[in-house]
Amino acid sequence: MDKLIEKAGVLIEALPYIQRLANKTVVIKYGGAAMLSEELSSKIMQDVTLLKFVGVNPILVHGGGNEINGMLEKLDIKPDFHNGLRITDDDTMDVVQMVLTGRINKDIVAKFGVAGAKAIGLCGKDANLITAEKKMADDGTDLGHVGQITSINTNLLDLLVKDEYIPVIAPIGVGKDGESYNINADTVAGEIAAALSAQKLMFLTDIDGIRSDPDDPESLISIITIDEIYDYIESGVISGGMLPKVDGCIKAIENGVKRTHILNGTIPHPILLEIFTDKGIGTMVRKTIEE
Amino acid sequence: MDKLIEKAGVLIEALPYIQRLANKTVVIKYGGAAMLSEELSSKIMQDVTLLKFVGVNPILVHGGGNEINGMLEKLDIKPDFHNGLRITDDDTMDVVQMVLTGRINKDIVAKFGVAGAKAIGLCGKDANLITAEKKMADDGTDLGHVGQITSINTNLLDLLVKDEYIPVIAPIGVGKDGESYNINADTVAGEIAAALSAQKLMFLTDIDGIRSDPDDPESLISIITIDEIYDYIESGVISGGMLPKVDGCIKAIENGVKRTHILNGTIPHPILLEIFTDKGIGTMVRKTIEE
Amino acid sequence: MDKLIEKAGVLIEALPYIQRLANKTVVIKYGGAAMLSEELSSKIMQDVTLLKFVGVNPILVHGGGNEINGMLEKLDIKPDFHNGLRITDDDTMDVVQMVLTGRINKDIVAKFGVAGAKAIGLCGKDANLITAEKKMADDGTDLGHVGQITSINTNLLDLLVKDEYIPVIAPIGVGKDGESYNINADTVAGEIAAALSAQKLMFLTDIDGIRSDPDDPESLISIITIDEIYDYIESGVISGGMLPKVDGCIKAIENGVKRTHILNGTIPHPILLEIFTDKGIGTMVRKTIEE
Amino acid sequence: MDKLIEKAGVLIEALPYIQRLANKTVVIKYGGAAMLSEELSSKIMQDVTLLKFVGVNPILVHGGGNEINGMLEKLDIKPDFHNGLRITDDDTMDVVQMVLTGRINKDIVAKFGVAGAKAIGLCGKDANLITAEKKMADDGTDLGHVGQITSINTNLLDLLVKDEYIPVIAPIGVGKDGESYNINADTVAGEIAAALSAQKLMFLTDIDGIRSDPDDPESLISIITIDEIYDYIESGVISGGMLPKVDGCIKAIENGVKRTHILNGTIPHPILLEIFTDKGIGTMVRKTIEE
Amino acid sequence: MDKLIEKAGVLIEALPYIQRLANKTVVIKYGGAAMLSEELSSKIMQDVTLLKFVGVNPILVHGGGNEINGMLEKLDIKPDFHNGLRITDDDTMDVVQMVLTGRINKDIVAKFGVAGAKAIGLCGKDANLITAEKKMADDGTDLGHVGQITSINTNLLDLLVKDEYIPVIAPIGVGKDGESYNINADTVAGEIAAALSAQKLMFLTDIDGIRSDPDDPESLISIITIDEIYDYIESGVISGGMLPKVDGCIKAIENGVKRTHILNGTIPHPILLEIFTDKGIGTMVRKTIEE
Amino acid sequence: MDKLIEKAGVLIEALPYIQRLANKTVVIKYGGAAMLSEELSSKIMQDVTLLKFVGVNPILVHGGGNEINGMLEKLDIKPDFHNGLRITDDDTMDVVQMVLTGRINKDIVAKFGVAGAKAIGLCGKDANLITAEKKMADDGTDLGHVGQITSINTNLLDLLVKDEYIPVIAPIGVGKDGESYNINADTVAGEIAAALSAQKLMFLTDIDGIRSDPDDPESLISIITIDEIYDYIESGVISGGMLPKVDGCIKAIENGVKRTHILNGTIPHPILLEIFTDKGIGTMVRKTIEE
Repeated sequence: MDKLIEKAGVLIEALPYIQRLANKTVVIKYGGAAMLSEELSSKIMQDVTLLKFVGVNPILVHGGGNEINGMLEKLDIKPDFHNGLRITDDDTMDVVQMVLTGRINKDIVAKFGVAGAKAIGLCGKDANLITAEKKMADDGTDLGHVGQITSINTNLLDLLVKDEYIPVIAPIGVGKDGESYNINADTVAGEIAAALSAQKLMFLTDIDGIRSDPDDPESLISIITIDEIYDYIESGVISGGMLPKVDGCIKAIENGVKRTHILNGTIPHPILLEIFTDKGIGTMVRKTIEE
Repeated sequence: MDKLIEKAGVLIEALPYIQRLANKTVVIKYGGAAMLSEELSSKIMQDVTLLKFVGVNPILVHGGGNEINGMLEKLDIKPDFHNGLRITDDDTMDVVQMVLTGRINKDIVAKFGVAGAKAIGLCGKDANLITAEKKMADDGTDLGHVGQITSINTNLLDLLVKDEYIPVIAPIGVGKDGESYNINADTVAGEIAAALSAQKLMFLTDIDGIRSDPDDPESLISIITIDEIYDYIESGVISGGMLPKVDGCIKAIENGVKRTHILNGTIPHPILLEIFTDKGIGTMVRKTIEE
Repeated sequence: MDKLIEKAGVLIEALPYIQRLANKTVVIKYGGAAMLSEELSSKIMQDVTLLKFVGVNPILVHGGGNEINGMLEKLDIKPDFHNGLRITDDDTMDVVQMVLTGRINKDIVAKFGVAGAKAIGLCGKDANLITAEKKMADDGTDLGHVGQITSINTNLLDLLVKDEYIPVIAPIGVGKDGESYNINADTVAGEIAAALSAQKLMFLTDIDGIRSDPDDPESLISIITIDEIYDYIESGVISGGMLPKVDGCIKAIENGVKRTHILNGTIPHPILLEIFTDKGIGTMVRKTIEE
Repeated sequence: MDKLIEKAGVLIEALPYIQRLANKTVVIKYGGAAMLSEELSSKIMQDVTLLKFVGVNPILVHGGGNEINGMLEKLDIKPDFHNGLRITDDDTMDVVQMVLTGRINKDIVAKFGVAGAKAIGLCGKDANLITAEKKMADDGTDLGHVGQITSINTNLLDLLVKDEYIPVIAPIGVGKDGESYNINADTVAGEIAAALSAQKLMFLTDIDGIRSDPDDPESLISIITIDEIYDYIESGVISGGMLPKVDGCIKAIENGVKRTHILNGTIPHPILLEIFTDKGIGTMVRKTIEE
Repeated sequence: MDKLIEKAGVLIEALPYIQRLANKTVVIKYGGAAMLSEELSSKIMQDVTLLKFVGVNPILVHGGGNEINGMLEKLDIKPDFHNGLRITDDDTMDVVQMVLTGRINKDIVAKFGVAGAKAIGLCGKDANLITAEKKMADDGTDLGHVGQITSINTNLLDLLVKDEYIPVIAPIGVGKDGESYNINADTVAGEIAAALSAQKLMFLTDIDGIRSDPDDPESLISIITIDEIYDYIESGVISGGMLPKVDGCIKAIENGVKRTHILNGTIPHPILLEIFTDKGIGTMVRKTIEE
Repeated sequence: MDKLIEKAGVLIEALPYIQRLANKTVVIKYGGAAMLSEELSSKIMQDVTLLKFVGVNPILVHGGGNEINGMLEKLDIKPDFHNGLRITDDDTMDVVQMVLTGRINKDIVAKFGVAGAKAIGLCGKDANLITAEKKMADDGTDLGHVGQITSINTNLLDLLVKDEYIPVIAPIGVGKDGESYNINADTVAGEIAAALSAQKLMFLTDIDGIRSDPDDPESLISIITIDEIYDYIESGVISGGMLPKVDGCIKAIENGVKRTHILNGTIPHPILLEIFTDKGIGTMVRKTIEE
């Protein structure tokens, strides 16, 4: 019985957080190692399902680089990168779209179905959800179908989240002539959170958060300001795959998103841990330290 | 961190129960010793608040015998009972109404306010919520303002529970000329659950449930059928204050209520324990054993 | 037949007033001698019911000083006043709340039921309708639970008046920790009218209105401006129990209430007389004389 | 002041009737002498406006025989009747439609505007409100554009009465090819009341009601049953212009209309007198005497 | 089959225009010769019905000078004009109202019924749709019931067009005392388009549009600016019956109407031709040439 | 101008069909050769877009056998069939899902975007739209992921079609554990039309319809009854890929679908031709010949 009462206590601890997030939108970027493990992945779906059922409006944006590479390999298409951006020719774009929207996206949606939630798998082509245009590399290199977002059309998302649905979004943009664009999933998450003035934006990554010393896990930063981020970028502490995440946070904050987080998606139930514990986990990005 | 993950696991365990009760009505009869302890009482309010915020529609019906007696004593009015029913003369009725609707009811409502929920304190007089008529004792004794329910008007409850409110109901009925009736709170809870075809009806009492041997705490019955209840009543195993509770369960079941429970309100978080654990606690009353 | 036609004429005379008040909110403070007579009281309920059924949204705020004193006396608690404010210790507060919300409020509600209207009895604790904080006497005397309003939460009132309900409000406020506050009913009426930008605020008192010579019934003032009120307060013409009424009027006017009135509640049907006659009765308080 | 209080009493007397008719539909046939007097007519408009503003949904159907005859005369078209039905050739139909829908109907509507109500002037052609087909005389005489109703389309009326509008209907039907039909206004009123399952149907005529002796004003019948009507028709007591009125009553009653009345429209405020007095005026037609 | 495919192509050509006008309001002034031919008239009704069914909200305003003159003649009332305005004495006003609202208006409505659309025939008296006051001639001549618009009440139109109805409006205004006013139909169309901020306003006239040389059909102007119109008025190129049309266009444009057109209503399907062809027909009036 | 007027006439010819289908649901199965030609495909999207904009609710179900085979070939997976059903092992299922939901489905959706319509690409996994279970071959052969439908969940479709969206559905079902099922697209179209009680179901195929002599294009049957279909199946006239189409028609008809059609999708604008011409094209399947 004591065990049971303790469990009840855990539920009650969650109550103030549930109250605070009631009817609020939370955008979650899901990718990396957390996607590769069936077990971790199913826990993420549970977390998001729980959010939906306690009255929060979650929206999931996912990546899928590893699976894309696997399929390209099977098809003998050699991946080609330029400064970290995948050069996306027509054949590659076709594979990127198929794998993201046809395999990963719909499989996530099916897992939600098993968890008892109603998810809808979308990409930027659905009702022109994410319109995009060609993005040129800084040095003028033609990156093919790499795109940058020109608009997020929030009507469809509003319709779905007010009803019983969880939107699951693959980071494919659509151009004026219906052509496909390959867009960084972190960027998509940031822009969607911004367009919806979400309450919270969370990046589930493979590390615990931002470190002041990238090689030292103990140097995790709990709270970081936008100004500090710019300093760290300049000094090279923040670089590579962390860049679109911090950009996404900044973009979101500047558009009214209250809380943005970078956290480790490879521990069980990372979303619940961040939301339903006082301290939270990972790194929170803020406008200013006092706030 | 393991501790945290364990907590997340507790939340996830609750998920299927939350899903099952989403948008469903749960009527809770709250009374006895659980009302007398500030600490227990505040835990009950938290439980009910949590239910509301995870999408369930709780309705609370309360008693208040002890406080009524205290006030009668202060006013030098001697309580008078006939076969367990309080003979309710005009002065007594006035005190019963004042204490139930003016002190206990509004204090419960205030505690919900502190817990962050919006509760509305009602009695049968509000919008003719509970209409009643004079009830005569079986032997013809005049019981004064003791009443029996003639109708429950569900419109007001529907309006409130569909919005953000928790109705808290004092067991006072209203007659055709506006006169007050003193009604057993267990009966009120059963009739309201029946009128609303609630998903669940819970009686929070001072003991763990129905016992096959009233003197043996170990003889707690987990599941009991209506037929078995009738046998136990006949044999005297079920008697006294347990009678209106089992009557309430039967009335409710016969009107489509899915689950009815009698459980101990003096342990912490009894509502969460019953709802969010597989086995539940206390005694569940069912139509038939197989169901 | 002529008698009948004359009656029809009376109804037609009321038409322009009904048209003008359609869907408008009217806040009525009800107290004093009018509450003590069953006959007068039942006429007030009829008046308010009629308003509701011809498309006006009435809200009733009531007092109850006399009945509180009676109960305090029965309980051997000696009333204690300081500059006209009841020093409200814990025991007194308990009685004030019980009598106001448990007896007077619910009895009014029951009378509406008899009149065929659906009234809901509320106090500041219901859904945090009236939040309050401790009020100190000007000279620093501790007045106990005497409170001043910090906010009126209009959502609940909006929900009820748009539907078929008449809110009946007891002047009890609620503090941050759920504690009770005793608030002047005139003040509550003024603040509620202000918060709702009501069309009209009416104080039913024991005298005909404001008199330029308090001792001369013939000196009744039909229309008075805010500036004139300040002059009369300074000169002592307006004092005592009339002060919170005129304060309520001024507060309401400054928040957009169109018409405020002080009138005699001890004549039959005072509300209808004020509303459905050209000249009205009592004193109307206005911003300026021209208006 | 006593005079005023008496007036308030009249309003209160009307309350139970207002409560009973709240949100109910009342169809009123308006015609005959009551239409010819500006003064009487303006009182009728006031009555109907009052109904609308106290929450009833009135619908007005009007006739106009006198004005039609006047216009026919001016145009040198000789009226021609067959068994009381106007033989309606093309030219006559044109005049009937113009006078009914273009003069009388729109002038009634304008009077409502002056009374502060929003009325909409309709005929059967508007949104196919009243579809009709050619009606043959019993003896096979061609009656021209005399029509019988084939359907009443209630959608438009529902839309208007739920909003703030009073429909005013001219008794013109429309055929399959858009051709006009001249229909008895009493019949239209009865069919509309039937189609809407109105609460009440009232015929404003030039006499006080049905008399058991047509020549003796003292022989007014207060309540008459359908069976009695059939007897009176057989015996010739009910005949002529009274026939379509009693037919309308019977048709309406058989389709669920609760109350049907034939009353004198030439006394001031006949509608209010019937509705807001206990005994009512005129003759009430009922299914059975006990009811 | 080729013939069929060509037809499908015509439908597809209309698609972008349908998309552009979806849920937009189009006000059409219908009058002159187009009203006199049954065949042309029925084509206009088809055009408007098609607009309604493809998601556009058409509103029709009609004139009727010819028929008014015919009826005046039959009644031996001599038409009298002053500077192109009909001097409208009481008898004339009566005829104007009867013919416009009772014959032309309701006959148009019936034709819509045959075409399968639901039209409602209205004039300014219905729900005070068009309020007006007496208009004096510039030289002080008393024009009788000639009126100028003081307000357009859009609530009724909004209710009807959001539902399945097509409003058909006769140009009669209503004064403060319910009196009738005779208003130029072109002016009414312009004011209604302005009040509703319609997307488009179309005048169906007897000529192809504005000509730079009134006598030369070849001199049709496709697009004209407001400034050019003023020049043409000054030089007398635009005069007579064209004046209220260009005034209506200017008034509408200044109130946010996007497109205004003057076109020939005597060719078959003029509305479809203007809307569903790239070049359109007739003269388009614009604020500026570049736009 | 004559050319223009002729075009207007074509639009008017479409009007009665538009009126008949207003707010009705039309399910279109799109597959085969029509999908392989960019030009034909874009005409189909225009047809469906036009339907949506003239007030019809189209739903598109698509196949994709050819593209699946192409991708299987690239991945060196050998297609394997058993009695016309693709034996779908895990790798094949993965490719089927990817190609159908990730390439074909989203590319169709993008084409709608270009056409100015808002389409949403769905498969059975989205919100459990199509639940399925394993289907065994009649001879017991294990067909792998070949599935048969157990339920269609219409809530999501209702939400989307009532709003501005066109659902585009890939024929993938979802099992209890989230596993994928490969379902015949014709069967999916029939079941969705049945579940929604659609007004119309259309199969766009590569031939003109059902032929009484499969080898003789001249033997096209315009109207066929269910009984005749059973005869033709028995005699082998109807066989192969035509079987699921006629099954879909029968299933749909038995569930209340009014009209079902099999027609040639390789001619331009086949949907418009069927809907907007009197005779229609292709074969119409009916319950009985008289109907």
